[in-house]
Amino acid sequence: MAGPVIFERIALIGLGLIAGSMGLRIQQDGLAREVVGTSRSAPTREAAEALGLCHRITATAAEAVRDADLVVLCVPIGAMEAVAREIAPHLKPGAVVSDVGSVKRAVIEAVQPHLPEGTHFVPAHPLAGTEHSGPHAGFPELFENRWCLLTPVTTDADAIDRVTRLWQALGSNVEAMDPDHHDRVLAVTSHAPHLIAYTMVGVADDLRRVTDSEVIKYSAAGFRDFTRIAASDPVMWRDVFLNNREATLEILGRFTEELFALQRAIRTGDGEMLHDYFTRTRAIRRGIIEAGQDTAAPDFGRGKPR
Amino acid sequence: MAGPVIFERIALIGLGLIAGSMGLRIQQDGLAREVVGTSRSAPTREAAEALGLCHRITATAAEAVRDADLVVLCVPIGAMEAVAREIAPHLKPGAVVSDVGSVKRAVIEAVQPHLPEGTHFVPAHPLAGTEHSGPHAGFPELFENRWCLLTPVTTDADAIDRVTRLWQALGSNVEAMDPDHHDRVLAVTSHAPHLIAYTMVGVADDLRRVTDSEVIKYSAAGFRDFTRIAASDPVMWRDVFLNNREATLEILGRFTEELFALQRAIRTGDGEMLHDYFTRTRAIRRGIIEAGQDTAAPDFGRGKPR
Repeated sequence: MAGPVIFERIALIGLGLIAGSMGLRIQQDGLAREVVGTSRSAPTREAAEALGLCHRITATAAEAVRDADLVVLCVPIGAMEAVAREIAPHLKPGAVVSDVGSVKRAVIEAVQPHLPEGTHFVPAHPLAGTEHSGPHAGFPELFENRWCLLTPVTTDADAIDRVTRLWQALGSNVEAMDPDHHDRVLAVTSHAPHLIAYTMVGVADDLRRVTDSEVIKYSAAGFRDFTRIAASDPVMWRDVFLNNREATLEILGRFTEELFALQRAIRTGDGEMLHDYFTRTRAIRRGIIEAGQDTAAPDFGRGKPR
Repeated sequence: MAGPVIFERIALIGLGLIAGSMGLRIQQDGLAREVVGTSRSAPTREAAEALGLCHRITATAAEAVRDADLVVLCVPIGAMEAVAREIAPHLKPGAVVSDVGSVKRAVIEAVQPHLPEGTHFVPAHPLAGTEHSGPHAGFPELFENRWCLLTPVTTDADAIDRVTRLWQALGSNVEAMDPDHHDRVLAVTSHAPHLIAYTMVGVADDLRRVTDSEVIKYSAAGFRDFTRIAASDPVMWRDVFLNNREATLEILGRFTEELFALQRAIRTGDGEMLHDYFTRTRAIRRGIIEAGQDTAAPDFGRGKPR
C-alpha cells in the first residue's frame, strides 16, 4: 500500500489563507516530503516562517519551484500571469502545476501559454474560505468536507490523479468540470452573491454616517451574514469580478429583473406574489441541507442546531 | 429582594418560534406564575401542548387573555389588527399589551385604536430568529445576548419597566426607540437584506432548472448564507414588507443605485473602484465584531473561530 506522500516536493506560491491551510495540512499528514513556500511580501514570508506554514520559505518564486513536483499558484487571479512567466524557466521537467483561483477560464488563459512543454496544468478551485485572509488565517481543517473542482488542461492521467488525491487527502470531495461551466455555476453560487453582499453593506455603511452607529449595533440576522461575506479579501474579489465579468454581469442582470418584480409587488401590495416567491426560495434551502452541503455549518447562535 | 415573577399571568397569542421560545424560558425561570397560550390553528395548539410550551393552551384568544397581566401578540403583522379587535373586550383592566412584530409603526396603528382605556401598550421587537418557524422551532435560549427594542406607546413607567425586565430576564439587552426610527434602521439591517437574499435565491432556483442540481451541490460560502436567510417564514416576511413598505423601498432604491455603479465598474474594468469599495465594507464587519454583536455566532464551519 502506498504511503501518504503524494508529491515529493510541493511549492506554494503566495502564502495567504489557502496556501497556509494547505501547508499546515500537508505537513501534518505527511502528504509531501517537503513543502516550500514563497510570497512577494517580506512580512508575509516572515509570518509564514514563524507560523510554520511550510518546511522552508524562499525569497523568490524561482527558488521555490526548483525541483518541485507540484507547484500551486495561490495568488490573486490578477497576479497569475506574472507568476507563471516568472516560474516557467525554473520548473522541473514533468512538474505538475495547479492553482486555487475562483475563476478558471481566465486563469487558464493567463497561465497555460507560459508553461513549458512536458509540464502538466491541473487548475483547481477549492470551495473553501473564510472572511479572514493572510498567512495568520490558515488552519489545516479548512478544506474538510468542502468541494474542490478541477478543470484539467493536461490530459496526463497521472497528473490529474495525483492532484485529485492531494485534495482528497486535504479533506475535500473532488470533481472535474469544464472551465466555462465552472465559471457560470460559480457566478450564481458565489460571485454574484458576494457582489450583492458588498453592495448592501456599502449602502448600510453610507447610512451609518447618518444614523450614528445604530446600523452596526442592531445588525440583525441576515445583515450580519452579509457583513461577514463583505469582509472577504478585497484584492481577491476585485480580481474575481474582473475575470468572470460576463457570467457575473449576466447573473446580476437577472437578479435586478427579479428584484424589480419584488419591489413592484411590495409597492402595489401584492402579498400573494411575495408569499409564493418566499415559499419557493424556502425549498432550495432544504435541498442544500439534504445534499449535505451545510453539515459543516451548524447555525450556532442563529438557532438551535437540529 | 424580589422573586423572579415579573407578571402573574402572561398570555401568548400565536405559538410560533418566538412565542414558543418565550413560553419555555418563562416557565424555566419562573418569570410568571402561569403562561397561557393560544393559536388559531388546532394542530399548532396540539403541538404546543405536547411540547409544553405553556402551562395551559386555550382554544380562543379571548380565553387566553382572561386575567392576564401581560398579553403578547406573537402573530404575523397582518393578523395583529384582527387579534387586537378580538381580545380587546376581554382584557383585564390595567393589563399590559405587547407584541413581537418586526415593524413597529404599522403594529401600533393596527393595535392601539382597539385597546381599552387603562391598558398599556408596550410594543417590542426581539432581534432574534432562525430560519425555522412554528411551535417545534422554539428553544429557551433564543433571546440570549440579543437586542430587544421597545417602542412604548403608553407612558406608564411601571408597564415599561416590567416589559423591560421580562426581556432582560429572557436574556436580551433592551433599548427604547421611536417607532419610525426603528422601522428605518431595521429596513437597512434586516428587511432589505432579506429581500435581497430571497431574490438571489430565487434567481438561483430558476437557473437550477437549467443546470440540474449543480447550483445546490456547489453552493459556496455566501450563497449558503443567503439560502438560510431566504428560508425564513414566508407569511411573516410578506407582512414585514407590506408593512414597512416605504423604508424598505427607499433602501432598495439606494441598493440598486450602488449595484449599478459596481456593475459599471466590472464592465469597464475599474479595479480601483472595486478594491476601494470592498476595503470600505470590510471595516463595517470589524465594527460589528468590536460591538460584540457577533459573539453568539462564531463562524463554525465557515472558518476557524478566533
